[in-house]
Amino acid sequence: MALIVQKYGGTSVGTVERIQQVAKKIIKHQQAGDDLVIVVSAMSGETNRLVALANELNDRPRGRELDVLLSTGEQVTIALLCMALQQQGINASSFTGSQVRILTDNTHNKARIMEIDDNKIRSALANGHVVVVAGFQGCDKDGNITTLGRGGSDTTAVALAAALKADECQIYTDVDGVYTTDPRVVPEARRLNQVTYEEMLEMASLGAKVLQIRSVEFARNYNVPLRVLSSFIEGGGTLITAEDPTMEKAVISGIAFNRDEAKLTVLGVPDHPGIATQILGPIAKENIEVDMIIQNTGYEGTTDFTFTVHRNDYDSALKVLQKTAESLNAREVTGDNKITKVSVIGVGMRSHAGIANTMFETLANENINISMISTSEIKISVVVDEKYLELAVRSLHTAFNLEKA
Amino acid sequence: MALIVQKYGGTSVGTVERIQQVAKKIIKHQQAGDDLVIVVSAMSGETNRLVALANELNDRPRGRELDVLLSTGEQVTIALLCMALQQQGINASSFTGSQVRILTDNTHNKARIMEIDDNKIRSALANGHVVVVAGFQGCDKDGNITTLGRGGSDTTAVALAAALKADECQIYTDVDGVYTTDPRVVPEARRLNQVTYEEMLEMASLGAKVLQIRSVEFARNYNVPLRVLSSFIEGGGTLITAEDPTMEKAVISGIAFNRDEAKLTVLGVPDHPGIATQILGPIAKENIEVDMIIQNTGYEGTTDFTFTVHRNDYDSALKVLQKTAESLNAREVTGDNKITKVSVIGVGMRSHAGIANTMFETLANENINISMISTSEIKISVVVDEKYLELAVRSLHTAFNLEKA
Repeated sequence: MALIVQKYGGTSVGTVERIQQVAKKIIKHQQAGDDLVIVVSAMSGETNRLVALANELNDRPRGRELDVLLSTGEQVTIALLCMALQQQGINASSFTGSQVRILTDNTHNKARIMEIDDNKIRSALANGHVVVVAGFQGCDKDGNITTLGRGGSDTTAVALAAALKADECQIYTDVDGVYTTDPRVVPEARRLNQVTYEEMLEMASLGAKVLQIRSVEFARNYNVPLRVLSSFIEGGGTLITAEDPTMEKAVISGIAFNRDEAKLTVLGVPDHPGIATQILGPIAKENIEVDMIIQNTGYEGTTDFTFTVHRNDYDSALKVLQKTAESLNAREVTGDNKITKVSVIGVGMRSHAGIANTMFETLANENINISMISTSEIKISVVVDEKYLELAVRSLHTAFNLEKA
Repeated sequence: MALIVQKYGGTSVGTVERIQQVAKKIIKHQQAGDDLVIVVSAMSGETNRLVALANELNDRPRGRELDVLLSTGEQVTIALLCMALQQQGINASSFTGSQVRILTDNTHNKARIMEIDDNKIRSALANGHVVVVAGFQGCDKDGNITTLGRGGSDTTAVALAAALKADECQIYTDVDGVYTTDPRVVPEARRLNQVTYEEMLEMASLGAKVLQIRSVEFARNYNVPLRVLSSFIEGGGTLITAEDPTMEKAVISGIAFNRDEAKLTVLGVPDHPGIATQILGPIAKENIEVDMIIQNTGYEGTTDFTFTVHRNDYDSALKVLQKTAESLNAREVTGDNKITKVSVIGVGMRSHAGIANTMFETLANENINISMISTSEIKISVVVDEKYLELAVRSLHTAFNLEKA
């Protein structure tokens, strides 16, 4: 008998009929003999409805009251799902974040889970109940309601699975797993049966559509087997786990990409310690997130410094950088907001040589110029002109044989 | 500086605009220097919407889950009202029933308040905050969410006022006070500036439209001055307090009536101890509420027994009573479902003789036949044919000079 944590997102519980579908799914699992803890989100549309009400009353609603308001969304779903289960003769008990006691810090709207009390859940399970927990919410040590931020229900599910030492945490969503790349770009893209936490994290740009990156980190830290499945289509989904040394692995797991990037370069900066902070500090102060960062030696004791930002932040980043460049006596500032980042990801590249070369060669054969390169242990990213995005992804997908299992 | 508990019902907070109006009202009171604890209901329509969702999923939703669901209604309102106050620069903090800790028993859907922890409220008040509490809800000792039943927000307000030893508990609603009788029947009906708890309790049928009888009992038990006011019209409302011996009182405060009554009589029942239970026990078992009960001596060691029920229960009560009569060897069962009850209420009647006589004489002058009489210390009720209801109420209103202050 396994203990499984399942999470159903907003679309999966978006209507009364869908809640009934979810109840049926749960009952099937229960009949297979598993102990079940179910985490649910607010019915789709509900959070937006509540935020709209808040905005009508306050330009900038405070975090504490916004959390009191938003947490009602999941509270409605847990009650309704229990009712649907009870209608089918299944014992079920609901718990809000405060009731479980999912203790968080007091950062309203994006709180972090500190500790989970598993007492109530364990005793409900011992009584043969399906336990239904509100995702996305908790409470701080003073009993104030907190929320984990959008998508936080995934994190709730993984944290519960960790606290309960569950056998698996299943995330039901509207896609049926993690793919080798975006099927809208490469129709031959294939669902992966298994990826490692690290690969999933590096696939952020692909994975973010599937599940919250934060919940993957959490799963990795506590070694919780995480499975992404579709609420609507039957199938085994994608299992995300620690690396298994006994298993034969594909060298490359997937190709990720970020469409809306922009790059900025400051040329001829005096090369002295602390230069990176001097350049990126003012950028961070403007709340602009930086993605890739590359520093290269320039000539005569100067250095060239390049970084990428989201395209929406390009103009403001450029303004900040020009000021910094002036104060640093840099030679020149350049930029390009029509670029895209393509990454090849796989834990296999640690033990296989020549991956980078295959990647560069493939792009060269297509006459795609690479303007930046950045590597990590299990990922190689290149920046190319945005017009080459599809061509780059497709040719790499073929080059690494990703369409074949 | 006074400590005031104010309660705003569902219509008073039914839209964003009305919540803003309530915020303005609160700010005015705060500027007058009062400490304020505000109790709010769910936005009007919200509870019905949630109940409808529940009914779509379950024929008979269980109490525990229904309470989890319904309690979200008030939780939304407390957050929104705080946001409206904060938008105006007022410090405000919201608390759910569980957060305050309004401890109740575990009778879901109609829980009773056992104890209120006033710590969090007092410290928020000490910090200059307006405190906004969710009405209608609490939690049991295991942290399960409970609700007090419809109209329970009045009870929350009074219980909080008692726990905090507030100077006054103000119930804002859509009527501007308690009237000598229903103004739709007697246009000269006058708003009472003051009534006693006892009178208010006896006026149940009038008062129920104004506030929950349970909250009046609570107020009397803890001697909380209770004021009924309109959310929409300025005015002093009606103050409900303990009897004040120094004050000159009207003999009669008001005329109450119940339109939809029916009476049932069993004639010639053997007159022996326990006969009342034998007759009313089976009625109670069918969950039929009995209002007036009258027993009178019949002839030859038998007795006649009459009681009234709501008209909707007439048919099922008649069926039960016929069975009982048979087993008791009673002579006959009769009934009438076209009757109405008219009551004259006033603490003054304790010290004034002749009230009953005035009442009977007035009705006789109008040729209204009385078919039942029942008296308490501060109330005289008569049952008359329903067609005489308006005439009876109007003539009594005039006979007791109720149109004059």
